Amino acid sequence: MNRGFAASEFRARVKLAQTRMEAAGLGALLLTSEPEIRYFTGFLTRFWESPSRPWFLVLPANGAPIAVIPSIGAALMAQTWISDIRVWPAPDPEDDGITLLAATLREVGGPIGVPSGPESYLRMPLASFGQVKALSALEFTHDHGIVAALRAVKSEAEIIKIAHACAIAGRAFDRVPEIAGEGALLSAVFRDFQRLLLEEGADLVAYVAGGAGPDGYGDVISPASDAPLARGDVLMLDTGAVWDGYFCDFDRNYAVGAASGNAALAHAQLAEAVEAGLEAARPGARACDVYATMAAITGAGEGSGRLGHGLGMQLTEGLSLIPQDRTELVPGMVITLEPGVTTGPGTIMVAEENIVIRAGAAERLTRFAGPVLPII
Amino acid sequence: MNRGFAASEFRARVKLAQTRMEAAGLGALLLTSEPEIRYFTGFLTRFWESPSRPWFLVLPANGAPIAVIPSIGAALMAQTWISDIRVWPAPDPEDDGITLLAATLREVGGPIGVPSGPESYLRMPLASFGQVKALSALEFTHDHGIVAALRAVKSEAEIIKIAHACAIAGRAFDRVPEIAGEGALLSAVFRDFQRLLLEEGADLVAYVAGGAGPDGYGDVISPASDAPLARGDVLMLDTGAVWDGYFCDFDRNYAVGAASGNAALAHAQLAEAVEAGLEAARPGARACDVYATMAAITGAGEGSGRLGHGLGMQLTEGLSLIPQDRTELVPGMVITLEPGVTTGPGTIMVAEENIVIRAGAAERLTRFAGPVLPII
Repeated sequence: MNRGFAASEFRARVKLAQTRMEAAGLGALLLTSEPEIRYFTGFLTRFWESPSRPWFLVLPANGAPIAVIPSIGAALMAQTWISDIRVWPAPDPEDDGITLLAATLREVGGPIGVPSGPESYLRMPLASFGQVKALSALEFTHDHGIVAALRAVKSEAEIIKIAHACAIAGRAFDRVPEIAGEGALLSAVFRDFQRLLLEEGADLVAYVAGGAGPDGYGDVISPASDAPLARGDVLMLDTGAVWDGYFCDFDRNYAVGAASGNAALAHAQLAEAVEAGLEAARPGARACDVYATMAAITGAGEGSGRLGHGLGMQLTEGLSLIPQDRTELVPGMVITLEPGVTTGPGTIMVAEENIVIRAGAAERLTRFAGPVLPII
Repeated sequence: MNRGFAASEFRARVKLAQTRMEAAGLGALLLTSEPEIRYFTGFLTRFWESPSRPWFLVLPANGAPIAVIPSIGAALMAQTWISDIRVWPAPDPEDDGITLLAATLREVGGPIGVPSGPESYLRMPLASFGQVKALSALEFTHDHGIVAALRAVKSEAEIIKIAHACAIAGRAFDRVPEIAGEGALLSAVFRDFQRLLLEEGADLVAYVAGGAGPDGYGDVISPASDAPLARGDVLMLDTGAVWDGYFCDFDRNYAVGAASGNAALAHAQLAEAVEAGLEAARPGARACDVYATMAAITGAGEGSGRLGHGLGMQLTEGLSLIPQDRTELVPGMVITLEPGVTTGPGTIMVAEENIVIRAGAAERLTRFAGPVLPII
């Protein structure tokens, strides 16, 4: 499996962005976050875990992107297709790239579009941003959603990476009986599950969540407790495993020792919902339509949360399967189908699968869990 | 080992912040990022990996903090010491917490201090921030560095967690001979090293970096290649493993098969530098003094990068061991000592250890690597 992308892929992304920038009247985009910068450059490193240094990519309305980055990243950036790399010795508390960035922006010209919509963050100190704005004396505005819209539709090369991450996690889920069973501590199961993901080929395990309890679990974002699994518990594990910078995001449910009729029924209903979601997720349908299709089966009411979302360079990105999201599905979008059902007072069960929108029916990126709740 | 903190610890943090807020004339702090919110609440979840939802903590000049968060986090936040929890059904593209946050801020009153200095990021869309500012009609300003200054000095309970993370990684480093040797692919070594960290007790492996080559490596931020280790290579592994939300950050070097005289000499020199750094890192010394002590031994010149940094809830945080950082060391600061030496054209070797500043001499949190380069 090849890592990275051909330079032609990045050039195509830049060209698409520039077409939209022209229509929006932008002189340049200023990008500061990991996925935004990686999307246009291929710059892949776990060093973003350190918040100490800001990183910038300036994408002009014409011509190639300019990386304005800490010198510690120069060698790695030079391995990408980017050739205009400007560095400063960060961190520098007196001028952490501010002068260099402002000069670069002035050279390129404004207005400067900065991603400002849902899910976007300015990954630089607010005070520095103010200084860059003042120093460059350019107009700063939003990016008109250009970067998010481009990222929402995946190339075949991106889809292959997501599918590979899904396959890795699928093999790890198959091995859960090795690590979980009556008496196993949930915290140990979480730890061992991450180990299985690595053994099956994940580069890193960016996200693991889950829960366990009779007939279901209370929520899906809590850290694991040291409570032991008990016979009759439903164990859920959910992972965002990463391969070459792309995520899967799906879960699996297991009954410990024996499945209650309630849990078995819920699992079958969830399987029905994801199959219906798959069927509904065709070009022209809207995010809210896929939501409604699944909600009709699970009986999700107002405030039941979203039943899926986009997926790719981040665990969650792009559209939400909620009543208010009227985003139209187009081929190449990768999304999760994530219905939940209430199984008792304060307990839920949640399914999650990953699919890619295609010209006709959507394509499964995960081997769907199916109706039968597996017993471990 | 107990997880979490006593409520008294959070109350003490809030009280210290409020004393400084009063001096700075702030009506409230608005916090949006994972470490900032966790610092005052104890809210610990890997769900931050999803960028889809903003989370807010409002810390008033008087009284208890108010969590303004997506409803999906209500149950987990209710397990912390926070009692005033206000939720909305996020994500909501029409009003993603904006009205609720603005109303809360108006209730509390301004001026509103927002972390704006080095390493801080506003984790909410810029457009939403603009709307909150307009809707609340309050004055927004920076936080006067209050949050960063508090976080820089660790409590004993925090130091215990960091020490525990260090001990976990130390045991994993001891086992590197199990996974690395001549012919092993660097990518497999990275993967297996993460597995060792989990086996030794890490909750998650937030950061792994490293490199390998004759006499050293080119940089320390690149992802692993599929190149096999060769006899005579120096392998370096660096990790930010996490236990209960606290990081270690240190590395180890190994010679594959045999150590060149050059590499062995460099390793001994690095050991000398970290011992000197440890000796210099006493209350009253400044970050730049510790830098100078180590640089004098390794011959680091201008632009050689920083030789250490603060550490805690993030892989890197707080002070930098660089010539420009005049931060005075005080007891309770946890820092890394991270000298590097050039071993050849384009190759370096880097050591890293973790220490905590104490009233007299600093205390080692890692078992220092020592002068002898281990052979695997």
